[in-house]
Amino acid sequence: MPNSDQPEHISSSYEGELRRLRDMIARMGGLAERQVAESTEALVRHDTDLAGEVIQRDAAIDALEREIEAYCIRLLALRAPVAGDLRLIVAAMKVAHDLERIGDYARNAAKRTLVVAQQPQVGSLNGFQRMARLVLENLKNAIDALVEDDAERAEEVWGADEPVDDIYNGIFREMLTHMMEDPRNITAATHLLFIAKNLERIGDHATNIAETVHFAVSGDTLPEDRPKSDTASYAVVRPPG
Amino acid sequence: MPNSDQPEHISSSYEGELRRLRDMIARMGGLAERQVAESTEALVRHDTDLAGEVIQRDAAIDALEREIEAYCIRLLALRAPVAGDLRLIVAAMKVAHDLERIGDYARNAAKRTLVVAQQPQVGSLNGFQRMARLVLENLKNAIDALVEDDAERAEEVWGADEPVDDIYNGIFREMLTHMMEDPRNITAATHLLFIAKNLERIGDHATNIAETVHFAVSGDTLPEDRPKSDTASYAVVRPPG
Repeated sequence: MPNSDQPEHISSSYEGELRRLRDMIARMGGLAERQVAESTEALVRHDTDLAGEVIQRDAAIDALEREIEAYCIRLLALRAPVAGDLRLIVAAMKVAHDLERIGDYARNAAKRTLVVAQQPQVGSLNGFQRMARLVLENLKNAIDALVEDDAERAEEVWGADEPVDDIYNGIFREMLTHMMEDPRNITAATHLLFIAKNLERIGDHATNIAETVHFAVSGDTLPEDRPKSDTASYAVVRPPG
Repeated sequence: MPNSDQPEHISSSYEGELRRLRDMIARMGGLAERQVAESTEALVRHDTDLAGEVIQRDAAIDALEREIEAYCIRLLALRAPVAGDLRLIVAAMKVAHDLERIGDYARNAAKRTLVVAQQPQVGSLNGFQRMARLVLENLKNAIDALVEDDAERAEEVWGADEPVDDIYNGIFREMLTHMMEDPRNITAATHLLFIAKNLERIGDHATNIAETVHFAVSGDTLPEDRPKSDTASYAVVRPPG
């Protein structure tokens, strides 16, 4: 009979525990990717059912974050890790938190999609699809870098955020122009602006994850000034005529 | 002569180290509060010099986060803490990250203030001042709760976010109405929307800090569903006439 005093989720081998931790992060990363992909799909297809599913599913990501944090605190207490193992465990908590934030942004985008779907169509949504594709690629690479202990791959992600910012800056200007052309566009365009901002923030979190993973794997921090070109915070668009 | 192999910032007493950690968080919290207060002051007074100072000063907050994280990793490695001390150290890393995010939101608000100050005035900025006041109170109480090991105070903050959301929802609708009335308001109103959203997110981070502190001090987690009423994600405003 198994000893019921032994918590099921602390395995007998330390190596096995660290592997299990990587698996938990991989699972959470996969779920976060799905949320980002499906919230964008829901937007582009005006699919309010799918948006509703994304909103519901966010609770599973939140639960995974709590599970990972609790597991990490147990490992810290029971194994007193040092060096690379300690960095991995601290990184896992940070990455889980970034993934939880990513889930929140995807849920918020899905909420806004419920409104946008009822409004007149404003411009093309191609930019949103392109942003989502780039962000998802970065997110996947950052998580894979953690799971596979690959500092180089993490560093590649860290430098790959710029095209995301460029698309975001373009969408910002485009949406303001639509608003100025016709006040009936304002509600939808405002929510679309925030959805674009959510995708941009998701991209930032993917970059954060890459930085965290790079430090965890190599012990070296990346330079502070990463390539970054969000100029939309300074954008001015003038009304026509 | 002092032994130069002994890192200056790991003091000889464990108690002293934990006190020093709380002091670092208090210092970082104070700096974050100042950034939020001054970015709002810059907005309300159209003070672009002050906005510029806020933007410059953000680097000091980022540096403090790195310092706190490095200190925590040293403490974990050298002291192998358990129970309440372990929770405090993990909490310190999480809180430092929340404060870094708060600093980023304040800096972003300051950047947008540079644009808003050049645009025609859109409505009243009283709502922004009220939001900032509430958010700062929550932030201060959450940090004090950590420094003073006060779980009750943390729990009070955790329940106090609702008025912030109410003001934010009001600003959201007001700004959309201004946009619809006159397209010349659109650039300023859009940046003001994002500034309001930044303040609302700062409020969320203050609540996160309160949750983290409550767990660190008491070992108990607060319920998952905290009072929360951001309805702006669903808002629809119709053009006049």
